[in-house]
Amino acid sequence: MSDFEVDPAFETGSIAVADWPLCHIRLQDDGRFPWLILIPRVAGAVEIEDLEPEDRARLLEEIIRAGELVRPLGGKAGLAVDKLNVAALGNVTAQLHVHVVGRRRDDPLWPDPVWGRPGAFPWPDAMREALLAAARA
Amino acid sequence: MSDFEVDPAFETGSIAVADWPLCHIRLQDDGRFPWLILIPRVAGAVEIEDLEPEDRARLLEEIIRAGELVRPLGGKAGLAVDKLNVAALGNVTAQLHVHVVGRRRDDPLWPDPVWGRPGAFPWPDAMREALLAAARA
Repeated sequence: MSDFEVDPAFETGSIAVADWPLCHIRLQDDGRFPWLILIPRVAGAVEIEDLEPEDRARLLEEIIRAGELVRPLGGKAGLAVDKLNVAALGNVTAQLHVHVVGRRRDDPLWPDPVWGRPGAFPWPDAMREALLAAARA
Repeated sequence: MSDFEVDPAFETGSIAVADWPLCHIRLQDDGRFPWLILIPRVAGAVEIEDLEPEDRARLLEEIIRAGELVRPLGGKAGLAVDKLNVAALGNVTAQLHVHVVGRRRDDPLWPDPVWGRPGAFPWPDAMREALLAAARA
């Protein structure tokens, strides 16, 4: 992982949270949704197939862990999410990354996807700190 | 898998292709994109975490296989895709399913996500048959 660097594009709109065994974890600073971004710390990876099989398994474990983190945090109301949205897109920033987003039926964009939609507002400080503490535990 | 049934909602807009070891595979009939839908044949599964660990690994293998299938088929022009979009959303149809979509920088929606966007046209017959044959091989 020595040549790995996070694409600077992620610095706009998201906050570094932690490094898990495979992934660098970021919190999307969008108070509409509890939303983590998992970036495997593997230089040059763009698609899931670019990971070695053992790293693919780690990625899945970390996706599930991220889901457990966002599940109790359904937005500023702190209510449980109804559905996880898990996606590796990368049309804008090619570096392999996986979004794990907690969705609620009453969130502002339901049932549409969250990507490329304006209207983000920063997380309330207390909620951001709670999510960061959980992700770093 | 005996109680598994494909949610009837998938019958609108997609075509049954094959059953792979884990997933029922469907082709989204949207000639703008080569787009497969993988539905794990596990009754009641909604989130990835609902799968047993060995099925999670199978799902990843089948996601990669699906990517290999769509990669050479960048739409009606038959050109290679630039990026795979892999996503488990399920806001509209909760049954666990994974989209594997081949995207091109000149496709009609790039770089936006494909979900919930009108404008689909059916696959040209020859392309549809080629993709079905490849997925069934």
